[in-house]
Formats: sequence, C-alpha cells, structure tokens
Amino acid sequence: MKIGIVGLGLIGGSLAIDLRQLGHTILGVSRSPKTCQAAIARHIVHQASPELSLLAAAEVIFLCTPLGALQSTVEQLIPHLNSTTILTDVGSVKASVVEAIAPLWQNFVGGHPMAGTAESGLDAALSGLFIDRAYVLTPVASTPPAAVEVVSALVRSLQSKIYQCQPTDHDRAVAWISHLPVLISASLIATCMAEPDPTVLDLAQKFASSGFKDTSRVGGGNPELGVMMARYNQPEVVRSLYAYRHQLDQVIAQIEQENWTELEKWLKNTGSDRPLFIDS
Amino acid sequence: MKIGIVGLGLIGGSLAIDLRQLGHTILGVSRSPKTCQAAIARHIVHQASPELSLLAAAEVIFLCTPLGALQSTVEQLIPHLNSTTILTDVGSVKASVVEAIAPLWQNFVGGHPMAGTAESGLDAALSGLFIDRAYVLTPVASTPPAAVEVVSALVRSLQSKIYQCQPTDHDRAVAWISHLPVLISASLIATCMAEPDPTVLDLAQKFASSGFKDTSRVGGGNPELGVMMARYNQPEVVRSLYAYRHQLDQVIAQIEQENWTELEKWLKNTGSDRPLFIDS
Repeated sequence: MKIGIVGLGLIGGSLAIDLRQLGHTILGVSRSPKTCQAAIARHIVHQASPELSLLAAAEVIFLCTPLGALQSTVEQLIPHLNSTTILTDVGSVKASVVEAIAPLWQNFVGGHPMAGTAESGLDAALSGLFIDRAYVLTPVASTPPAAVEVVSALVRSLQSKIYQCQPTDHDRAVAWISHLPVLISASLIATCMAEPDPTVLDLAQKFASSGFKDTSRVGGGNPELGVMMARYNQPEVVRSLYAYRHQLDQVIAQIEQENWTELEKWLKNTGSDRPLFIDS
Repeated sequence: MKIGIVGLGLIGGSLAIDLRQLGHTILGVSRSPKTCQAAIARHIVHQASPELSLLAAAEVIFLCTPLGALQSTVEQLIPHLNSTTILTDVGSVKASVVEAIAPLWQNFVGGHPMAGTAESGLDAALSGLFIDRAYVLTPVASTPPAAVEVVSALVRSLQSKIYQCQPTDHDRAVAWISHLPVLISASLIATCMAEPDPTVLDLAQKFASSGFKDTSRVGGGNPELGVMMARYNQPEVVRSLYAYRHQLDQVIAQIEQENWTELEKWLKNTGSDRPLFIDS
C-alpha cells in the first residue's frame, strides 16, 4: 500500500519505520528539507518532500503534525487528493479535531496512538513504538466503515491494542489519565518553588528523591505539548481540574479535622484502585 | 560500639546489616519473637529480644518504630538506660518527635534517613540502603554536641549525605517533597475513580500509561505511612495543601481564560525548575 505521512517527528517517523518494514511504500512530507533528506538517507521513507503534492499517489495518509497545524494541513492537502484517499490523524485530542476535519474530508478517521517517549523529532523515531500500546480510533456516524477497516488493519499490523470510542469519550478519558496528571504534576513543582524561606527551599531541593521525582515527571515535560492538551481539550481539562480541586478540598478537610480513620480508608482505596489503571 | 535498634523493619533491619558489617555489635528489639528469631538466624543482629532490657548495654540506640509508638517506647526504655546512652530516631517527621523526646532524654538526636523502598518489614531490609541518600539530623539548643558527633560519625560511616537543620525546617521541606506528593497523587486516583460515566472510566483505565503510572505511584502506597505523615506533620502538610490549591486555582484561571501564553511560560518554568530538585 502507498502510505503518506505528514510530519516526520517521533510519531510520524516511528509509523514510517514500522509500516515500511511491513512492506508498504512510504511517502513522507516535512516542512524542513533537512528532515526530508535525513528521512531518505536513513531509509525511514522511500520518498520525501516539503511539498504536499508528493502525496497525490497515497492511498492512506497519516497526519502527524502538531494539533494546531492539522486543519490547515488538510485544507492544503485536499486539492492533491482523489476522493478515495483515506486520512487519519494521530492527535492526542479528538472531538475538536474530528469536528474540524470530518466536514472537509469524508474518508477521515480520527486516531490517537497512545505511545511516546520523553524525546521528540525524527531522531527520536523508533521501531516497535506502538507494540502493545493503546491506539484509539474515533469514527463518527458519517465515517465510511470501509475507511475505518483500512485504518484498523494498519493499526493491528503495528501490534497496537486497538480501541474504538466516541471522540468526546476519548477526550474525557485522556483528560483524566494524561492531561490532568501534567497539570497537577507541574503545579507541584511550581508550589514548591514558591516556598518563601530560602533555607527551606534549599533543603527541599536537597531532600527530594524518588517520590518527588515520579510525581513531578510529566509536569517537567514538553511545554508546547502541555499547552496543546489544555487548548484543544479545554472543556474536559477544566472539568477534570474542578473535580480534582473538589477532591483536594475533601482531603484538606479530613486532615484539618484530624479525621485519621477516614484518611486511612481513603488512602487504602487509592492503593487498591490504582491497579485498575496500571498493571504493575 | 554496642548499638541497639528498636524496631526491626526495613529501616531498622537495614541499619543493623550495615552497622554490623562495619564491626559494631548489634542488639535488636522487636515486639515479635518471630522477627527476633529471624534477625538472629539471618545474622542481621548479634542478639535480639522483645524485651527493651536487652539494650541496657547499648551505647547508641536507633529508634525505628512507627512514629506513633516512639514516645511510649522511649518512656519504657529509660529505666534500662544509663545516662550516657545516646538515642536517635529515624522518623519522617521531626518537630513533634523532638518536642516529645528531647524533654525525656537529653542525649537524644532527631534523625531522618531519607531512604526506603516500596517494601516494608525485616524481609525488605537491604545492605547499602543509605549510600548516597540524604540523612538529616535535627539537633536543638539542648542537644549535647558530643551526642551529635557520635551519631554523625555513624551516619557518615553508612555513606549517607548528612544534613543538619532545625526540626521545623525539616518538616516544612519534607511536606513539599514527600508528604504533599503523596496526597496530590492519591487525589489523582480518587478523582479519576469518581468519573460517573462507566464507559469513560473504563476507557481511562485502559488508556492509562506511563504518565498516570508515575504521577499516581506514591498515592497508591502504604496507607498507614500516609496517615502518619499527615498526623505528625499536620500544620506543614495543611500549609502545603493550601499553597498547592492556590497554585491550582491559578492554572484553572489561565485555562478558563485561554491565556495560552502564560500557560506556556508557566510550563517552561516548571520544566526548567524541576532539575533543581532532581538530577535526572
């Protein structure tokens, strides 16, 4: 199959590596001629160009640009496509993306591979990045079933765990387990830094170990990605933050009222609930 | 040197292993006769007993009981001691401990080895647990400098990074980097579990990966330890929670007001501030 990939970063590059290994012909587009050259030189793609016209021959195109560039990319891409071409994206937010793209192109299937590393860019692209990771597809009523089947088959060939759900359900779920964690983790770092006594701040920095390290990790990550999550999933992110603040108020009340029995019960529950999300 | 250890769990057992290897004679006390037998059989201690009278000969005694048992342990221990015996504890909170113990025994040095694993109990005890970890001592005006010097020398021999500070400064610092993370991490789990739509909750549990895993880790830990932190460091924990909630309110406002420039600036700061606490 001829597969186009727009955006040769971590996700686009990793898709290219795996799909090429599976025997497909990979056509890559990147705004940067240097990235195009590198992708060809490293045998990640068969052909690459900064021009979207390269993708006229593609049967399926993965849109791997940042969320903010998706809609304009599709608008510029459409004149080059024939009507059977299937588009799918890899954005971490789905409702706003599907709302913007589905009216522009019928053969569009929203997608979100839940894989990544701390790195970004083509240099970070990896073989096997999607194995055993969740890959969510969010077709809507107007999405042709045949297009969903083609994208599903490609995703299955990457050995991902494939899920299908409504775009809004996806966005609400990822607000809980991906977007909210970034904001509460970043808030931890910011709150500690606001300690007014320099002696205490210095001690806190010296004493911090694995607990602080893990809890603060995603809050110290890519700022652009954090803004994109909040911006394109704003209603769900705000909703999750208010629910979180409500929970926090209950914990504060328990501790202020010295209600240790309730606090212990609550901590027992969080300990027994965590494995519902995480295997180990 | 004859060294007593009360409480043969992860910390007490690990101290016994390292101090014995350094040539000291180790006298261990545990309420559980089975733990005493195991500690002798595994050559972790030279002698062990459920009776505190075993420690009459000890020159330095490490108090490694849970925080809630510290004061009564010291009260029961005192009749067996001669006045030169040095006591030191390993509790994760210092102001309330020092306030309770210092009036009972002059040769007392508050201490907190900042080491641990996810496990607990004698079976979890390890050689080298304290190497390169922070070990805080919190002497006060009434603490004899000679007692501080003896405990410091033992701590240095464990290859820990030794720090000295005021008990209240310690408690404020650990509230930031250890106690607050537990509560915000547990609140994440509890908030996600409160999602009313079972479809969304199910998706959230399926989609959760490394970000949720790290951010929720300490909130899924030992509930008794979580309660002890909140109980014995209550004023500082409450203070840190209010500061955290204030920070959270600012983030909510930025996102509600779609102030993406400020949000990005804030996330850039948390990203560049995190390495002040954590090396890697």
